[in-house]
Amino acid sequence: MKISSFCLPTFKEVPSDVKLKSHELMVRSGMIRMETSGIYTWLPLGLRVLNKINNIIIKEHQKLNINHILMPTIQSAEIWKKSDRYNSYGAEMLKIKDRHAKDLIYGPTNEEMMTVIGSNVIRSYKNFPISFFHIQSKFRDEIRPRFGVMRAREFIMKDAYSFDLTLEDLKKSYELFYNLYLNIFNKLGLKIIPVKALSGEIGGDLSHEFHVICESGESEIYLDGNSENIDTKKINYDFFEKNYFVSTTDYAEEKKMNTTNYTKLSSIELGHIFAFGDKYTKKLKFIINTPDGNINPLMGSYGIGISRIPAASIEINNDSKGIIWPKEISPFDLIIINLKPNDENCFKFSDELYSKLLSENFDVLYDDRDERVGVKFSDSDLIGIPFQIIIGSNYLSENTIQIKNRKNGKELEIEADNVIEKINSFIDDDK
Amino acid sequence: MKISSFCLPTFKEVPSDVKLKSHELMVRSGMIRMETSGIYTWLPLGLRVLNKINNIIIKEHQKLNINHILMPTIQSAEIWKKSDRYNSYGAEMLKIKDRHAKDLIYGPTNEEMMTVIGSNVIRSYKNFPISFFHIQSKFRDEIRPRFGVMRAREFIMKDAYSFDLTLEDLKKSYELFYNLYLNIFNKLGLKIIPVKALSGEIGGDLSHEFHVICESGESEIYLDGNSENIDTKKINYDFFEKNYFVSTTDYAEEKKMNTTNYTKLSSIELGHIFAFGDKYTKKLKFIINTPDGNINPLMGSYGIGISRIPAASIEINNDSKGIIWPKEISPFDLIIINLKPNDENCFKFSDELYSKLLSENFDVLYDDRDERVGVKFSDSDLIGIPFQIIIGSNYLSENTIQIKNRKNGKELEIEADNVIEKINSFIDDDK
Repeated sequence: MKISSFCLPTFKEVPSDVKLKSHELMVRSGMIRMETSGIYTWLPLGLRVLNKINNIIIKEHQKLNINHILMPTIQSAEIWKKSDRYNSYGAEMLKIKDRHAKDLIYGPTNEEMMTVIGSNVIRSYKNFPISFFHIQSKFRDEIRPRFGVMRAREFIMKDAYSFDLTLEDLKKSYELFYNLYLNIFNKLGLKIIPVKALSGEIGGDLSHEFHVICESGESEIYLDGNSENIDTKKINYDFFEKNYFVSTTDYAEEKKMNTTNYTKLSSIELGHIFAFGDKYTKKLKFIINTPDGNINPLMGSYGIGISRIPAASIEINNDSKGIIWPKEISPFDLIIINLKPNDENCFKFSDELYSKLLSENFDVLYDDRDERVGVKFSDSDLIGIPFQIIIGSNYLSENTIQIKNRKNGKELEIEADNVIEKINSFIDDDK
Repeated sequence: MKISSFCLPTFKEVPSDVKLKSHELMVRSGMIRMETSGIYTWLPLGLRVLNKINNIIIKEHQKLNINHILMPTIQSAEIWKKSDRYNSYGAEMLKIKDRHAKDLIYGPTNEEMMTVIGSNVIRSYKNFPISFFHIQSKFRDEIRPRFGVMRAREFIMKDAYSFDLTLEDLKKSYELFYNLYLNIFNKLGLKIIPVKALSGEIGGDLSHEFHVICESGESEIYLDGNSENIDTKKINYDFFEKNYFVSTTDYAEEKKMNTTNYTKLSSIELGHIFAFGDKYTKKLKFIINTPDGNINPLMGSYGIGISRIPAASIEINNDSKGIIWPKEISPFDLIIINLKPNDENCFKFSDELYSKLLSENFDVLYDDRDERVGVKFSDSDLIGIPFQIIIGSNYLSENTIQIKNRKNGKELEIEADNVIEKINSFIDDDK
């Protein structure tokens, strides 16, 4: 993509009420734009990150044959009345009346709808176990939306639902999603910690959240022992045994845990999984006829806050100049910065390099703008693409160009031949 | 995808209030499910079709460097008040109050929001021409939703918006989208006709709709001359000259056209494009400083009703047995039907063929169910995958399998070696 035809509205400053680093950097790099309180547009650079995240999540779910569906955003209030959540959900639920004065809601989550769909499409006990996922906008009418897409009202969530016939199978499904989540967050370049959690509104008694440790995070978790040398690699991710015990502070409080030797840490919650059994299948009358009699299937639900992930990643990976994307979800793999777009030789070299890199299946952003060198460097550092290829006066005088690693500042001056090979080896060195 | 792990809830019958063939077949083939009046879930088979359509649309837009963004579904009422459409839009607009009693709406279209975004992200007259597209759920509170996803309340739309500084450039942008649309519908396997149309609520005086001719269609168009031998290839798609003149009946009526020699045809509207100039940039105060003074940029908007496309395609391509997908948007390229899943040899051959076809990048559905032959054949015909590969008793007795073309019923008995080659040549013969 050439920047000359890419809408990249970078800003030097942001309004003073922007408190969180990731919020500031997402606005300044032209990733998002607030339309009204807690409601955002994803601009081209931001949407590219979102789509990379979506693609990883979809691929990993499909590997496990989890059925991909798309439920609507608007739901009938009726199913929420049947599950007794229409009133209990509280003011965060956006209630709507249609032209015929019928009660609708904007879905904040989909347990009810999924249960009704399950009862319609799962015909026989032979179809179990079966699970579904979808990626869709959700709405929760937060009393005080803040921190950009970190606590938005309209947000994008991946939610999945499992159906089983026995408690043992439900635990297997839960474990499958638990491990899928560790795998997904690893692929997203995030060091995630599974945290014992309360189920809250959704119900059930088996529940984990997935957090990244982050000083500016709004959540709090307890970790047993000393946190000075937390090494996420040492946390045993098997949820049946563990080296550290980690729980939300809410959980510790509710369970009246003795937290004397625990360390309290700030974190960001990115996922939450629940096993709530027959709570919804009973209330919504989903019954399966089995050789052992009629059974209300047992369910679990599994959510990832997709639109919060870019913010969490930035919160952890940034410096004074801007964002530092992990390769996995970077909007582009590399950026070509032509410092002399009006020089015929620099233009020709940059243009050809751009085409070559595209044909090698790199996702390339190409700064072909007629702009000041300072603007090009500061924009490039701000948007945080992992590798910068800089073409300027040294190309003309010495036949050399520069490759730079955004994360550690490592620079390499290379001769301008067999460039692809050298770029590949520079990238490989970073692994 | 193995059917044993794919949720494919086919039905023999549908409720009697289902009037339209495509609606019947989409429900019976387990593509969609109605959640409440005019609001649908896309089940796995349906979502695959939708995603194929999305991918074609996204790819063709990106080839032209149209900026891909994602606006939210919920909008502030404020911008609609400024454009004077908050009241004029009528009862189809879903109006919402949030917990602070602030007026919100569920976007039925995005001219206002896009104008405000444009005024924020387009900084200089040097950035023109520039355009944007997004794919997002829309809501129009139809008084009588019907015909399944053909006239739903919540639906998926691709809407794009162009910004120019001169009328001449606006016409160029309009022409670019006009040709892009012909190209997209061609790639979707649909014979589309551009139709002169009124602009209605959106405004402006240059507008075309894109229709497919279809007896069951709700729209009406006029074609000059005799329709007996309509050949869509003979319609000159250049909108500056044409062989046939085609308009909506509304347009003919409004313009008081003499329609004596015109033929009236039923059709389905799949796209609508508008050039409305400065209608919104004036009202929402988007001003660009240019060497020729301050200018309100000129806009066009360009919509495709994505969730209506599968229905329109089915309405045109079906027979008494079910759907006949055009290759371009079929949920799978081919289906392997193993008639003897309990026979070890048939199982081994089918399984290996499935793996081979996947590795050749075919999208394959594999009916590995332990089901009656009749069910397998009727399900396969119902869901309409273009090519069927049938493995049964002939494999055991003669070492032959069958390839069948769903569209024309053509069958070929082939020896079960070098099968991929033979399948490729059978598919090529259909082109």
